[in-house]
Amino acid sequence: MTDADRFAGGAGRSRPPGLPALLSSDRLGALPTPSLILDEARMLRNIDRLRARLAPHGVVLRPHLKTAKSVEVARRVLADGTGPATVSTLKEAEVFAAAGVRDILYAVGIAPQKLDRVLALRAAGCDLSVILDSREQAEAVAAAARRADDPIPVLIEIDSDGHRGGLRPEDPALIGIGRLLYAGGAALRGVVTHAGESYGVAGEAAHAAFAERERAAAVAAAEALRAAGLPCPVVSVGSTPTAHAARDLTGVTEVRAGVYVFFDLVMAGIGVCSTDDIALSVLATVIGHQRERGWILVDAGWMALSRDRGTANQAVDQGYGLACDVEGRVIGDLILAAANQEHGILALRPGSTGLLPDLPVGTRLRILPNHACATAAQFDGYAVLRADGAAPLAQWSRFGGW
Amino acid sequence: MTDADRFAGGAGRSRPPGLPALLSSDRLGALPTPSLILDEARMLRNIDRLRARLAPHGVVLRPHLKTAKSVEVARRVLADGTGPATVSTLKEAEVFAAAGVRDILYAVGIAPQKLDRVLALRAAGCDLSVILDSREQAEAVAAAARRADDPIPVLIEIDSDGHRGGLRPEDPALIGIGRLLYAGGAALRGVVTHAGESYGVAGEAAHAAFAERERAAAVAAAEALRAAGLPCPVVSVGSTPTAHAARDLTGVTEVRAGVYVFFDLVMAGIGVCSTDDIALSVLATVIGHQRERGWILVDAGWMALSRDRGTANQAVDQGYGLACDVEGRVIGDLILAAANQEHGILALRPGSTGLLPDLPVGTRLRILPNHACATAAQFDGYAVLRADGAAPLAQWSRFGGW
Repeated sequence: MTDADRFAGGAGRSRPPGLPALLSSDRLGALPTPSLILDEARMLRNIDRLRARLAPHGVVLRPHLKTAKSVEVARRVLADGTGPATVSTLKEAEVFAAAGVRDILYAVGIAPQKLDRVLALRAAGCDLSVILDSREQAEAVAAAARRADDPIPVLIEIDSDGHRGGLRPEDPALIGIGRLLYAGGAALRGVVTHAGESYGVAGEAAHAAFAERERAAAVAAAEALRAAGLPCPVVSVGSTPTAHAARDLTGVTEVRAGVYVFFDLVMAGIGVCSTDDIALSVLATVIGHQRERGWILVDAGWMALSRDRGTANQAVDQGYGLACDVEGRVIGDLILAAANQEHGILALRPGSTGLLPDLPVGTRLRILPNHACATAAQFDGYAVLRADGAAPLAQWSRFGGW
Repeated sequence: MTDADRFAGGAGRSRPPGLPALLSSDRLGALPTPSLILDEARMLRNIDRLRARLAPHGVVLRPHLKTAKSVEVARRVLADGTGPATVSTLKEAEVFAAAGVRDILYAVGIAPQKLDRVLALRAAGCDLSVILDSREQAEAVAAAARRADDPIPVLIEIDSDGHRGGLRPEDPALIGIGRLLYAGGAALRGVVTHAGESYGVAGEAAHAAFAERERAAAVAAAEALRAAGLPCPVVSVGSTPTAHAARDLTGVTEVRAGVYVFFDLVMAGIGVCSTDDIALSVLATVIGHQRERGWILVDAGWMALSRDRGTANQAVDQGYGLACDVEGRVIGDLILAAANQEHGILALRPGSTGLLPDLPVGTRLRILPNHACATAAQFDGYAVLRADGAAPLAQWSRFGGW
């Protein structure tokens, strides 16, 4: 059986019992480069880790599907495949609803022009909720809810760290917006916050402090709404760093996280995972050398890795990605130091005392990404190293757009 | 006729004579956000400008199609729609060959594993040429050429500015590789260079200096090959900055350029165009405010604009993009100062003495991108404001992948 046969075999065939799993180098041999590789065993381990961590807290986990944008991944991330889930675009909501997800939070402030699509999804049986932080939005949602005779569920966005949108919990506008929704025909479902600033600090203690800021802000807002006689059944918090570090979730009903499913170098750099947990990599081929400059050129540039430089301000700058051999083992200090559209330049990290490895033209490598959401978005599918070690790679499609 | 009707009308219908062109705000009204807007009139002006500039030099223009990745754009960029053209991936070569382009240069160093696809395209009637800069690659290409009995045309990559790959023209390996190809069964078509460093300097004089470095290096390499008794019919140079500034092209046979078709803020920042020449923008909607911080939130983050921060080191840092009103007129110093996946934060450029404009929730804006290649790659199509001012937008698809 050739590599091409193995690949063409697609998903479904399992490894015969008793046979050893093939090496990744054999399983990836027939893929064109660059390709996006997903290590399913690592992904399943990451999924299990957060489930196990949150179980004792008695909260609902509402995974964010914006990283993977894949129905196959969603089936493995969601508890029973139907939700609850979080999305960042209405396109995601539409694709996942069509695939059977029934409880979706669209977690970007609603624009009035998007309410027709929200209503259509709800009319088709998906419990889609929206978020907002202004009277203008609340009036538009309430008007749409009355027009359609559908009490669109709304969570008010709370600002817990100054990162982007949301009301501070003590802002009197909170109660005004809550009343406007409640009286206006929408359903006031709760409050939602996200400590995006937690990505900028390292270590579990620092993430736990941001988790407490999320909890404190969301619970304070919920209590203010309830004190005003308004309903607030849902108190939703989360980010990948805070979800893995939160010590006390009293008053919280659900936790959101997204990138934990794949992890990436940014998350490794702040201590949420190790590089061995990163499930996503870009398969690349060596296409040249500039030996006197210490450069190895590969056919994966920023079109494959994305322009994300999320580790630039971390303790260890990984350039555009960290090189591994084709089995997924990190190669010393070899990073994608520079990237043009379809060219990547591998070089030793500045200050490294290592030796540049000898990688002839045609050598295949795997490059770990800074930011899984951004790198995955450059591809329309995953070549999946199956967790059971089966020889054929699975091909899982992913989608983009809005 | 509603906006939706106009949009659904698609391409083909022209504006009745005598009627004024509709405002962009009317023509863009029904689009979802974010959407990628292409101003065809600006694009045609950019295409004409470079054609007119190069005509007196008597060189062939071989446009790079990696920016647009669109058959509709290629038809307008290529002289007669069949070539010559440059591409950055074999996927581009395959799509454009299927659309009738017959002369294509694949301008990324060839990996041996890709030669089967090269041969298949050539067997289907496309004159596809490849580039390389090592004996290992030359041996692989010659072997493939002999195996298929097809003299694959090769250009040897020359390094004119230390930017990435290529041989210095005085490198003795140049002649060795030339002989290996010539004797080995491939066709030695010529030399190719690209002064990528020209993007890092501003002003026509600086670009003209890089154009002369391209010319001098490529012509020297061609003369070295010819002096060794080897053929070198093609001497190919170019980048958007150097193509617009070259003063002397003696000895050069063809010029390549790509991003000039759309232009972008990086090109405006180094003086190759003005912001009024930029044909590409991202339509976005205001979704919120943090007034005390001077922030306006929009529904276009880095997933729409890309993570490209190409203006970060220029004299004027444009953040993730420069805001225009929906007609395409720049709004003072308003830039996309920060970007999350689906959130953009508009703010005044640091140091601006302007006033933050009052843009209520629901307001539509257009954001000019730093880097057209990177931003266009985030979308699967262009909503085209037709040059003839016709009301219906055209929808031109684009592709990604490898």
